[in-house]
Amino acid sequence: MEQQVLAKNDLLAARNRSWLADRGILALNMMSSPGSGKTTLLERSIAHLGARRSVCVIEGDQETTLDAQRIRRAGAAVVQVNTGAGCHLDAEMTQGALSALEPAAGALLFVENVGNLVCPALFDLGEGKKVVVISVTEGTDKPLKYPHMFAAADLVVVNKIDLLPYVDFDVARCGQYARSVNPHVQMLTLSATTGENVDHWYDWIAQQ
Amino acid sequence: MEQQVLAKNDLLAARNRSWLADRGILALNMMSSPGSGKTTLLERSIAHLGARRSVCVIEGDQETTLDAQRIRRAGAAVVQVNTGAGCHLDAEMTQGALSALEPAAGALLFVENVGNLVCPALFDLGEGKKVVVISVTEGTDKPLKYPHMFAAADLVVVNKIDLLPYVDFDVARCGQYARSVNPHVQMLTLSATTGENVDHWYDWIAQQ
Repeated sequence: MEQQVLAKNDLLAARNRSWLADRGILALNMMSSPGSGKTTLLERSIAHLGARRSVCVIEGDQETTLDAQRIRRAGAAVVQVNTGAGCHLDAEMTQGALSALEPAAGALLFVENVGNLVCPALFDLGEGKKVVVISVTEGTDKPLKYPHMFAAADLVVVNKIDLLPYVDFDVARCGQYARSVNPHVQMLTLSATTGENVDHWYDWIAQQ
Repeated sequence: MEQQVLAKNDLLAARNRSWLADRGILALNMMSSPGSGKTTLLERSIAHLGARRSVCVIEGDQETTLDAQRIRRAGAAVVQVNTGAGCHLDAEMTQGALSALEPAAGALLFVENVGNLVCPALFDLGEGKKVVVISVTEGTDKPLKYPHMFAAADLVVVNKIDLLPYVDFDVARCGQYARSVNPHVQMLTLSATTGENVDHWYDWIAQQ
Protein backbone atom coordinates (compact mmCIF):
# COMPACT_ATOMS: atom_id res chain seq x y z
CA MET A 1 0.00 0.00 0.00
CA GLU A 2 2.77 2.40 1.04
CA GLN A 3 4.73 1.45 -2.09
CA GLN A 4 1.70 2.18 -4.28
CA VAL A 5 1.31 5.60 -2.68
CA LEU A 6 5.00 6.37 -3.20
CA ALA A 7 4.97 5.07 -6.80
CA LYS A 8 2.00 7.30 -7.67
CA ASN A 9 3.74 10.21 -5.96
CA ASP A 10 6.96 9.63 -7.91
CA LEU A 11 5.03 9.70 -11.19
CA LEU A 12 3.41 13.04 -10.34
CA ALA A 13 6.75 14.38 -9.05
CA ALA A 14 8.39 13.53 -12.38
CA ARG A 15 5.66 15.53 -14.11
CA ASN A 16 6.25 18.51 -11.81
CA ARG A 17 9.99 18.27 -12.41
CA SER A 18 9.53 18.34 -16.17
CA TRP A 19 7.01 21.23 -15.92
CA LEU A 20 9.47 23.25 -13.79
CA ALA A 21 12.44 22.45 -16.08
CA ASP A 22 10.49 23.58 -19.16
CA ARG A 23 10.09 26.99 -17.51
CA GLY A 24 13.60 27.25 -16.07
CA ILE A 25 12.21 27.42 -12.52
CA LEU A 26 14.49 26.41 -9.63
CA ALA A 27 12.39 24.72 -6.90
CA LEU A 28 13.91 24.18 -3.45
CA ASN A 29 12.11 21.79 -1.08
CA MET A 30 12.79 23.21 2.41
CA MET A 31 12.42 20.63 5.18
CA SER A 32 13.06 20.73 8.92
CA SER A 33 11.71 20.17 12.40
CA PRO A 34 9.04 22.61 13.56
CA GLY A 35 10.60 25.90 14.61
CA SER A 36 14.02 25.58 12.99
CA GLY A 37 13.61 28.95 11.30
CA LYS A 38 12.64 28.09 7.71
CA THR A 39 10.12 30.91 7.40
CA THR A 40 12.53 33.49 8.83
CA LEU A 41 15.18 32.36 6.33
CA LEU A 42 12.65 32.69 3.49
CA GLU A 43 11.56 36.18 4.62
CA ARG A 44 15.18 37.33 4.56
CA SER A 45 15.87 35.61 1.22
CA ILE A 46 12.82 37.19 -0.43
CA ALA A 47 13.90 40.64 0.73
CA HIS A 48 17.40 40.10 -0.66
CA LEU A 49 16.72 38.15 -3.86
CA GLY A 50 13.29 39.47 -4.82
CA ALA A 51 14.58 42.64 -6.46
CA ARG A 52 16.58 40.67 -9.05
CA ARG A 53 14.45 37.59 -9.61
CA SER A 54 10.84 36.50 -9.34
CA VAL A 55 10.53 34.60 -6.05
CA CYS A 56 7.46 32.64 -4.99
CA VAL A 57 6.59 30.22 -2.21
CA ILE A 58 4.41 27.19 -1.53
CA GLU A 59 3.72 27.05 2.22
CA GLY A 60 2.89 23.72 3.83
CA ASP A 61 1.35 23.56 7.32
CA GLN A 62 -1.18 21.36 9.05
CA GLU A 63 -3.29 24.41 9.82
CA THR A 64 -3.29 28.23 9.67
CA THR A 65 -2.15 30.71 7.03
CA LEU A 66 0.27 32.39 9.46
CA ASP A 67 3.37 31.58 7.41
CA ALA A 68 1.73 32.58 4.13
CA GLN A 69 0.89 35.95 5.68
CA ARG A 70 4.53 36.40 6.72
CA ILE A 71 5.74 35.47 3.22
CA ARG A 72 3.24 37.83 1.54
CA ARG A 73 4.37 40.68 3.79
CA ALA A 74 7.96 39.91 2.78
CA GLY A 75 6.93 40.54 -0.82
CA ALA A 76 6.56 37.15 -2.54
CA ALA A 77 3.59 35.47 -4.18
CA VAL A 78 2.52 32.53 -2.02
CA VAL A 79 0.03 29.67 -1.89
CA GLN A 80 -0.72 28.04 1.46
CA VAL A 81 -1.41 24.29 1.49
CA ASN A 82 -3.03 23.01 4.70
CA THR A 83 -2.52 19.28 5.16
CA GLY A 84 -4.93 18.83 8.10
CA ALA A 85 -3.83 15.67 9.89
CA GLY A 86 -1.29 15.06 7.10
CA CYS A 87 2.39 15.11 7.95
CA HIS A 88 4.04 16.16 4.68
CA LEU A 89 3.48 17.75 1.28
CA ASP A 90 3.23 15.42 -1.70
CA ALA A 91 3.61 15.83 -5.46
CA GLU A 92 -0.14 16.16 -6.05
CA MET A 93 -0.46 19.03 -3.53
CA THR A 94 2.56 20.64 -5.16
CA GLN A 95 0.98 20.30 -8.62
CA GLY A 96 -2.20 21.97 -7.36
CA ALA A 97 -0.23 24.77 -5.74
CA LEU A 98 1.80 25.33 -8.92
CA SER A 99 -1.43 25.71 -10.92
CA ALA A 100 -2.68 28.32 -8.44
CA LEU A 101 0.66 30.10 -8.16
CA GLU A 102 1.61 30.23 -11.85
CA PRO A 103 5.30 31.02 -11.23
CA ALA A 104 7.02 33.05 -13.96
CA ALA A 105 9.65 31.50 -16.23
CA GLY A 106 13.04 31.63 -14.51
CA ALA A 107 11.50 32.11 -11.07
CA LEU A 108 12.94 30.87 -7.80
CA LEU A 109 10.35 28.71 -5.99
CA PHE A 110 10.68 27.83 -2.31
CA VAL A 111 8.50 24.98 -1.09
CA GLU A 112 8.30 25.15 2.69
CA ASN A 113 7.32 21.66 3.76
CA VAL A 114 5.40 20.75 6.94
CA GLY A 115 7.73 20.96 9.96
CA ASN A 116 8.68 17.31 10.34
CA LEU A 117 12.11 15.70 10.20
CA VAL A 118 10.70 12.30 9.26
CA CYS A 119 7.90 11.90 6.70
CA PRO A 120 8.71 14.62 4.10
CA ALA A 121 11.98 12.75 3.34
CA LEU A 122 10.02 10.01 1.56
CA PHE A 123 7.98 12.23 -0.77
CA ASP A 124 9.56 13.64 -3.91
CA LEU A 125 7.77 16.84 -4.94
CA GLY A 126 9.62 17.28 -8.23
CA GLU A 127 11.89 19.89 -6.69
CA GLY A 128 15.36 20.69 -8.02
CA LYS A 129 17.12 20.34 -4.66
CA LYS A 130 16.24 19.27 -1.14
CA VAL A 131 17.39 21.58 1.66
CA VAL A 132 17.28 20.43 5.29
CA VAL A 133 17.37 23.19 7.92
CA ILE A 134 18.33 22.34 11.49
CA SER A 135 18.90 24.76 14.33
CA VAL A 136 21.72 24.59 16.85
CA THR A 137 19.14 24.24 19.64
CA GLU A 138 18.12 20.80 18.32
CA GLY A 139 21.23 18.83 19.28
CA THR A 140 24.32 17.54 17.49
CA ASP A 141 23.05 13.99 17.02
CA LYS A 142 20.07 14.71 14.75
CA PRO A 143 21.65 13.38 11.49
CA LEU A 144 22.17 9.98 13.16
CA LYS A 145 18.71 9.84 14.71
CA TYR A 146 16.86 10.98 11.56
CA PRO A 147 19.12 9.50 8.86
CA HIS A 148 16.48 9.27 6.11
CA MET A 149 16.07 13.03 6.02
CA PHE A 150 19.80 13.74 5.96
CA ALA A 151 20.42 11.01 3.38
CA ALA A 152 17.89 12.72 1.09
CA ALA A 153 19.35 16.23 1.50
CA ASP A 154 21.42 18.09 -1.09
CA LEU A 155 22.21 20.83 1.42
CA VAL A 156 22.05 21.05 5.21
CA VAL A 157 21.62 24.56 6.61
CA VAL A 158 22.59 24.83 10.29
CA ASN A 159 20.56 27.82 11.49
CA LYS A 160 20.50 29.98 14.65
CA ILE A 161 24.28 30.13 15.05
CA ASP A 162 23.66 33.33 17.06
CA LEU A 163 22.52 30.95 19.86
CA LEU A 164 25.72 28.86 19.82
CA PRO A 165 27.12 30.53 22.98
CA TYR A 166 24.07 29.40 24.97
CA VAL A 167 23.63 25.78 23.86
CA ASP A 168 25.65 22.57 23.74
CA PHE A 169 26.04 22.06 19.97
CA ASP A 170 29.14 20.85 18.09
CA VAL A 171 28.99 22.12 14.48
CA ALA A 172 31.96 20.04 13.29
CA ARG A 173 30.63 16.83 14.80
CA CYS A 174 27.14 17.46 13.40
CA GLY A 175 28.80 17.81 9.98
CA GLN A 176 30.63 14.49 10.46
CA TYR A 177 27.36 12.80 11.39
CA ALA A 178 25.60 14.26 8.34
CA ARG A 179 28.39 13.08 6.01
CA SER A 180 28.33 9.63 7.63
CA VAL A 181 24.78 9.13 6.31
CA ASN A 182 25.30 11.20 3.13
CA PRO A 183 28.95 11.60 2.01
CA HIS A 184 28.15 14.19 -0.69
CA VAL A 185 25.92 16.51 1.35
CA GLN A 186 26.87 20.17 1.49
CA MET A 187 26.58 22.18 4.69
CA LEU A 188 26.21 25.86 5.58
CA THR A 189 26.02 27.53 8.99
CA LEU A 190 24.15 30.81 9.35
CA SER A 191 21.71 32.88 11.38
CA ALA A 192 18.51 33.82 9.59
CA THR A 193 17.73 36.15 12.49
CA THR A 194 20.94 38.22 12.51
CA GLY A 195 21.91 37.65 8.87
CA GLU A 196 25.33 36.22 9.70
CA ASN A 197 26.65 34.06 6.81
CA VAL A 198 23.43 34.29 4.78
CA ASP A 199 25.53 35.37 1.79
CA HIS A 200 26.77 31.77 1.61
CA TRP A 201 23.15 30.68 1.24
CA TYR A 202 22.54 33.17 -1.58
CA ASP A 203 25.75 31.98 -3.28
CA TRP A 204 24.60 28.37 -3.03
CA ILE A 205 21.24 29.25 -4.62
CA ALA A 206 22.99 31.14 -7.42
CA GLN A 207 25.10 28.06 -8.21
CA GLN A 208 22.08 25.76 -8.70
CA MET B 1 -6.82 1.75 5.13
CA GLU B 2 -5.67 4.42 7.59
CA GLN B 3 -8.82 3.86 9.65
CA GLN B 4 -8.14 0.11 9.77
CA VAL B 5 -4.58 0.75 10.97
CA LEU B 6 -5.84 3.13 13.66
CA ALA B 7 -8.65 0.78 14.73
CA LYS B 8 -6.20 -2.09 15.15
CA ASN B 9 -3.87 0.22 17.06
CA ASP B 10 -6.67 1.35 19.38
CA LEU B 11 -7.48 -2.26 20.21
CA LEU B 12 -3.87 -3.04 21.16
CA ALA B 13 -3.60 0.26 23.06
CA ALA B 14 -6.65 -0.70 25.15
CA ARG B 15 -4.91 -3.97 26.01
CA ASN B 16 -1.74 -2.12 27.04
CA ARG B 17 -3.80 0.29 29.15
CA SER B 18 -5.48 -2.55 30.98
CA TRP B 19 -2.14 -4.37 31.47
CA LEU B 20 -0.58 -1.20 32.94
CA ALA B 21 -3.60 -0.47 35.17
CA ASP B 22 -3.53 -4.02 36.60
CA ARG B 23 0.04 -3.35 37.75
CA GLY B 24 -0.49 0.24 38.94
CA ILE B 25 2.04 1.53 36.42
CA LEU B 26 1.82 5.18 35.34
CA ALA B 27 2.85 5.49 31.68
CA LEU B 28 3.57 8.93 30.23
CA ASN B 29 3.77 9.27 26.43
CA MET B 30 6.34 12.03 25.84
CA MET B 31 5.99 13.69 22.43
CA SER B 32 7.73 16.65 20.82
CA SER B 33 9.68 17.97 17.85
CA PRO B 34 13.22 16.66 17.48
CA GLY B 35 15.57 18.39 19.90
CA SER B 36 13.06 19.88 22.33
CA GLY B 37 14.87 18.32 25.27
CA LYS B 38 12.78 15.24 26.14
CA THR B 39 15.80 13.06 26.89
CA THR B 40 17.45 15.70 29.08
CA LEU B 41 14.19 16.07 31.03
CA LEU B 42 14.05 12.28 31.49
CA GLU B 43 17.69 12.08 32.64
CA ARG B 44 16.98 14.69 35.29
CA SER B 45 13.69 13.07 36.30
CA ILE B 46 15.30 9.63 36.68
CA ALA B 47 18.04 11.07 38.91
CA HIS B 48 15.43 12.78 41.09
CA LEU B 49 12.62 10.24 41.19
CA GLY B 50 14.55 6.98 40.80
CA ALA B 51 15.53 6.74 44.48
CA ARG B 52 11.89 6.58 45.59
CA ARG B 53 10.18 4.74 42.75
CA SER B 54 11.04 2.26 40.03
CA VAL B 55 11.44 4.29 36.81
CA CYS B 56 11.82 2.78 33.35
CA VAL B 57 11.80 4.06 29.80
CA ILE B 58 10.81 3.01 26.29
CA GLU B 59 12.93 4.99 23.82
CA GLY B 60 11.62 5.57 20.30
CA ASP B 61 13.95 6.74 17.53
CA GLN B 62 14.25 6.09 13.81
CA GLU B 63 17.82 4.89 14.33
CA THR B 64 20.61 4.67 16.97
CA THR B 65 20.61 3.66 20.62
CA LEU B 66 22.10 7.02 21.68
CA ASP B 67 19.13 8.00 23.84
CA ALA B 68 18.89 4.55 25.43
CA GLN B 69 22.55 4.83 26.40
CA ARG B 70 21.89 8.21 28.02
CA ILE B 71 18.89 6.83 29.92
CA ARG B 72 20.82 3.77 31.09
CA ARG B 73 23.64 5.98 32.36
CA ALA B 74 21.04 8.03 34.25
CA GLY B 75 20.07 4.86 36.08
CA ALA B 76 16.83 3.56 34.57
CA ALA B 77 15.96 0.31 32.79
CA VAL B 78 15.34 1.07 29.13
CA VAL B 79 14.31 -0.59 25.87
CA GLN B 80 15.14 1.13 22.59
CA VAL B 81 12.64 0.79 19.74
CA ASN B 82 14.02 1.76 16.31
CA THR B 83 11.26 2.57 13.85
CA GLY B 84 13.46 2.74 10.72
CA ALA B 85 11.57 4.87 8.20
CA GLY B 86 8.60 4.95 10.62
CA CYS B 87 7.53 8.26 12.11
CA HIS B 88 5.93 7.29 15.42
CA LEU B 89 5.61 4.54 18.02
CA ASP B 90 2.43 2.46 17.95
CA ALA B 91 0.64 0.24 20.46
CA GLU B 92 2.17 -2.97 19.06
CA MET B 93 5.73 -1.65 19.44
CA THR B 94 4.82 -0.54 22.96
CA GLN B 95 3.46 -3.99 23.79
CA GLY B 96 6.70 -5.61 22.58
CA ALA B 97 8.79 -3.16 24.57
CA LEU B 98 6.71 -3.78 27.71
CA SER B 99 7.33 -7.53 27.39
CA ALA B 100 11.07 -6.92 27.13
CA LEU B 101 11.14 -4.29 29.88
CA GLU B 102 8.92 -6.05 32.46
CA PRO B 103 8.29 -2.91 34.54
CA ALA B 104 7.68 -3.51 38.26
CA ALA B 105 4.25 -2.99 39.81
CA GLY B 106 3.80 0.68 40.72
CA ALA B 107 6.58 1.79 38.38
CA LEU B 108 6.75 5.08 36.52
CA LEU B 109 7.16 4.42 32.78
CA PHE B 110 8.25 7.15 30.38
CA VAL B 111 7.66 6.44 26.70
CA GLU B 112 9.83 8.80 24.66
CA ASN B 113 8.19 8.91 21.26
CA VAL B 114 9.95 9.63 17.94
CA GLY B 115 10.68 13.35 17.66
CA ASN B 116 7.75 14.44 15.50
CA LEU B 117 5.04 16.98 16.28
CA VAL B 118 2.61 15.43 13.79
CA CYS B 119 2.17 11.66 13.48
CA PRO B 120 2.52 10.45 17.11
CA ALA B 121 -0.64 12.44 17.97
CA LEU B 122 -2.78 9.90 16.09
CA PHE B 123 -1.48 6.75 17.78
CA ASP B 124 -2.71 5.79 21.25
CA LEU B 125 -0.09 3.65 23.00
CA GLY B 126 -2.23 2.82 26.01
CA GLU B 127 -0.45 5.46 28.08
CA GLY B 128 -2.00 7.12 31.12
CA LYS B 129 -1.26 10.67 29.98
CA LYS B 130 0.13 12.40 26.92
CA VAL B 131 2.80 15.03 27.53
CA VAL B 132 3.88 17.40 24.76
CA VAL B 133 7.24 19.11 25.21
CA ILE B 134 8.06 22.23 23.20
CA SER B 135 11.08 24.43 23.57
CA VAL B 136 11.07 28.23 23.54
CA THR B 137 13.32 28.18 20.48
CA GLU B 138 10.51 26.67 18.36
CA GLY B 139 8.24 29.71 18.16
CA THR B 140 5.04 30.87 19.86
CA ASP B 141 2.69 29.74 17.09
CA LYS B 142 3.31 25.97 17.27
CA PRO B 143 -0.03 25.04 18.96
CA LEU B 144 -1.92 26.68 16.07
CA LYS B 145 0.22 25.13 13.35
CA TYR B 146 0.23 21.61 14.84
CA PRO B 147 -3.22 21.55 16.50
CA HIS B 148 -3.70 17.77 16.48
CA MET B 149 -0.75 17.26 18.81
CA PHE B 150 -1.83 19.99 21.23
CA ALA B 151 -5.47 18.84 21.14
CA ALA B 152 -4.31 15.36 22.22
CA ALA B 153 -2.09 16.59 25.08
CA ASP B 154 -2.91 16.35 28.79
CA LEU B 155 0.10 18.50 29.65
CA VAL B 156 2.29 20.90 27.66
CA VAL B 157 5.81 21.36 29.02
CA VAL B 158 7.51 24.50 27.71
CA ASN B 159 11.20 23.67 27.99
CA LYS B 160 14.48 25.64 27.69
CA ILE B 161 13.21 28.74 29.52
CA ASP B 162 16.90 29.47 30.24
CA LEU B 163 17.04 30.58 26.57
CA LEU B 164 14.11 33.02 26.84
CA PRO B 165 16.40 36.10 26.96
CA TYR B 166 17.86 35.19 23.56
CA VAL B 167 14.77 34.27 21.53
CA ASP B 168 11.46 35.82 20.51
CA PHE B 169 8.97 33.61 22.40
CA ASP B 170 5.81 34.73 24.22
CA VAL B 171 4.95 32.18 26.94
CA ALA B 172 1.53 33.68 27.73
CA ARG B 173 0.48 33.82 24.09
CA CYS B 174 1.67 30.26 23.47
CA GLY B 175 -0.52 29.21 26.40
CA GLN B 176 -3.51 31.03 24.89
CA TYR B 177 -2.92 29.28 21.57
CA ALA B 178 -2.65 25.87 23.28
CA ARG B 179 -5.90 26.45 25.19
CA SER B 180 -7.64 27.63 22.00
CA VAL B 181 -7.19 24.10 20.55
CA ASN B 182 -7.51 22.32 23.92
CA PRO B 183 -9.32 24.28 26.66
CA HIS B 184 -8.43 21.80 29.44
CA VAL B 185 -4.73 21.40 28.73
CA GLN B 186 -2.31 22.06 31.59
CA MET B 187 0.96 23.87 31.02
CA LEU B 188 4.32 24.06 32.81
CA THR B 189 7.40 26.10 31.98
CA LEU B 190 10.82 24.82 33.00
CA SER B 191 14.43 24.27 32.02
CA ALA B 192 15.57 20.65 31.96
CA THR B 193 19.14 21.92 31.54
CA THR B 194 19.33 24.25 34.56
CA GLY B 195 16.62 22.56 36.64
CA GLU B 196 14.54 25.74 37.01
CA ASN B 197 10.89 24.89 37.81
CA VAL B 198 11.36 21.13 37.40
CA ASP B 199 9.75 20.66 40.83
CA HIS B 200 6.45 21.61 39.16
CA TRP B 201 6.96 18.71 36.77
CA TYR B 202 7.62 16.27 39.64
CA ASP B 203 4.50 17.60 41.41
CA TRP B 204 2.42 17.04 38.29
CA ILE B 205 3.68 13.44 37.99
CA ALA B 206 2.90 12.81 41.68
CA GLN B 207 -0.69 13.99 41.12
CA GLN B 208 -1.38 11.49 38.29
